[in-house]
Amino acid sequence: MEYFSTDFTLGILGGGQLGKMLLYETRKWDIRTRVLDPSPEAPARLACNEFVQGDLMDYQTVFDFAKDLDLLTIEIENVNVEALEDLEKKGVRVYPSSETLKTIQNKGRQKLFYRDSGIPTAGFSRFAYTSEIQDSVENGGITFPFVWKSARFGYDGQGVKIVRNREDLTSLANVECIAEELIPFENELAVVVARNSEGETRTYPVVEMEFHPEANQVEYVLCPARIPEEVGLRAQEVALMVSQKLGHVGLLAVELFRTREDTILVNEVAPRPHNSGHYSIEGSYTNQFEQHLRAILGLPLGRTDSKVSAVMVNLVGAEGFEGQVHYRGLEDILKLPGVTPHIYGKKQTRPFRKMGHVTIVDPNIDMARDRAKLVKENIAVVSKHKIS
Amino acid sequence: MEYFSTDFTLGILGGGQLGKMLLYETRKWDIRTRVLDPSPEAPARLACNEFVQGDLMDYQTVFDFAKDLDLLTIEIENVNVEALEDLEKKGVRVYPSSETLKTIQNKGRQKLFYRDSGIPTAGFSRFAYTSEIQDSVENGGITFPFVWKSARFGYDGQGVKIVRNREDLTSLANVECIAEELIPFENELAVVVARNSEGETRTYPVVEMEFHPEANQVEYVLCPARIPEEVGLRAQEVALMVSQKLGHVGLLAVELFRTREDTILVNEVAPRPHNSGHYSIEGSYTNQFEQHLRAILGLPLGRTDSKVSAVMVNLVGAEGFEGQVHYRGLEDILKLPGVTPHIYGKKQTRPFRKMGHVTIVDPNIDMARDRAKLVKENIAVVSKHKIS
Repeated sequence: MEYFSTDFTLGILGGGQLGKMLLYETRKWDIRTRVLDPSPEAPARLACNEFVQGDLMDYQTVFDFAKDLDLLTIEIENVNVEALEDLEKKGVRVYPSSETLKTIQNKGRQKLFYRDSGIPTAGFSRFAYTSEIQDSVENGGITFPFVWKSARFGYDGQGVKIVRNREDLTSLANVECIAEELIPFENELAVVVARNSEGETRTYPVVEMEFHPEANQVEYVLCPARIPEEVGLRAQEVALMVSQKLGHVGLLAVELFRTREDTILVNEVAPRPHNSGHYSIEGSYTNQFEQHLRAILGLPLGRTDSKVSAVMVNLVGAEGFEGQVHYRGLEDILKLPGVTPHIYGKKQTRPFRKMGHVTIVDPNIDMARDRAKLVKENIAVVSKHKIS
Repeated sequence: MEYFSTDFTLGILGGGQLGKMLLYETRKWDIRTRVLDPSPEAPARLACNEFVQGDLMDYQTVFDFAKDLDLLTIEIENVNVEALEDLEKKGVRVYPSSETLKTIQNKGRQKLFYRDSGIPTAGFSRFAYTSEIQDSVENGGITFPFVWKSARFGYDGQGVKIVRNREDLTSLANVECIAEELIPFENELAVVVARNSEGETRTYPVVEMEFHPEANQVEYVLCPARIPEEVGLRAQEVALMVSQKLGHVGLLAVELFRTREDTILVNEVAPRPHNSGHYSIEGSYTNQFEQHLRAILGLPLGRTDSKVSAVMVNLVGAEGFEGQVHYRGLEDILKLPGVTPHIYGKKQTRPFRKMGHVTIVDPNIDMARDRAKLVKENIAVVSKHKIS
């Protein structure tokens, strides 16, 4: 199969920032693309060859979008899997496969997969409805505190709550969910694994999510992680194990906990380019978007090591601002050496909305980390008018 | 002035590969763009916000394209300069300026500028018509061999000939031209200088053009150049001098000769991103396209040093092939570590047409150079049918 400068068309489900960044690479290799997204202002609307506006969860929309394609990929997991199954039956190559997505889409099923595959993960119980947790607590089956996770559509921190008492339980949506052991972890780590359709596998270095000491929010993603070598090797080993057991094709971002006893536990996975891999655009020999393309096209994988150390900072909408976005301090951070902002192109900001990210690179990870602090202090995603 | 995610629009004259690569950066920063190009299949047609098909040399086309813009730049020098002058009078910022372009567009005027500014360059004579050279030769004003250059529209090796005897003279077009001293050079070098609208200036490392020993064609562009440090410093000094005397805004690629006596002479300049800077996408902290944007937008310039050593190889159409392009061996070169192909997206190949380039990066320049040789040996830009 030839991909470069031919009539071959790659379909992408989702046209957000990940789709947009994937399009830099399809343009670099002159690969034709067709993008489906519900928003007429999707960041990936520009730079694809064809844009279709439509619902990613609607069977017919997804099926019709992709039925004449050779290859289909995703930038978001929440898509209609039944359509993907039927597309696969029709002969469309779908990477990640409907099987992989089915395992991942439901957090209960994802956890079962870890348990059944011997992959280390925090203990958990599954519930058809949140209301059933109450009984389990009363029977002593579950003890406070624990982590509640909605089984479906919970990502980017939504649908996840730490439950410390009966009171906390009452505020939760009554949906299919899991109750997971609360792990007092030392670090949150991530490893991106690439696997191509020929079965070739490569692992990126371990990255470290550094949390804000008070806000309990990821502030910085660092590559390399500042952890002992043996912990890093174990993290890569566990990530590879997930990749092998899933048999996925494309990228797989594996989020991990390093416990205080240096045990590595899998938190969750995303079968696509991921926020934890954004640093790779400036830091790595092969950025995660090019690597995803190589993997799903069945091309040889590129080297996964880094040219330089990198720190990534997310640009999220500041609290109290809503409306037409303004990036305050952007010119100031451009004065700092090795600083690259990425603006996703969403026109409207709102509190905590992901609007872009900034990568800071330097041969020395500590220098990059210091500069990342300056970046964080000097930039703000705001709008002209404060909301009340 | 705000550029990011606003209604500000940047105009680009020319939608070839340079315009296309500039668009990766406008997308990265969500800057609105409008592109003018004569070809409906221009590589930069995709990923700009508006595309206008039209003649870059036509006064009215260029004027109408840009009259409501705040900022206009180019990816090719051969544009209607009178239109740019009138646009400047109307208040449109044009970088590079019409003045800079006027100096550069005509090779006779460009050479005069070097001479008048005390910039070292090979000796030359100007002629209104090639036919006048004959007299000069007979008077002993010019001696064989010399380099003939058409004053206008000579670039990428077209419009340049080495004249060794009277016979060679007869094959030349009878146009405005210069006859230049033939310099037996040790190396051909290039230095990219960035200067923003605030006057801030930064210089990239010296790159080396390595020629094929027989074909007398540039085969590899290497960064850093394998030259003594003092020669490199002198080359950067001369390039900076050209930048200062021109007072340009944006990028300026300065092509230089290093003579066998280690003298640095200016060959010619391009006031825009340039083939000699393509390595920067993978090699540099700030790639040349982002740097050009920073410069013309009046933003702080980024660091110009390299993360890793880099070698660039042009992908040109193989001799004997014409028609729908096929990149033979692309999968083979993707197996090599640190190899990134760029496919410009021109659908038709023809002999020597620039169809793409490949960058090879490695911490060690000699390793990168060895791998670049493998790339060159394994890839070919061909079509299904040989031409006779």
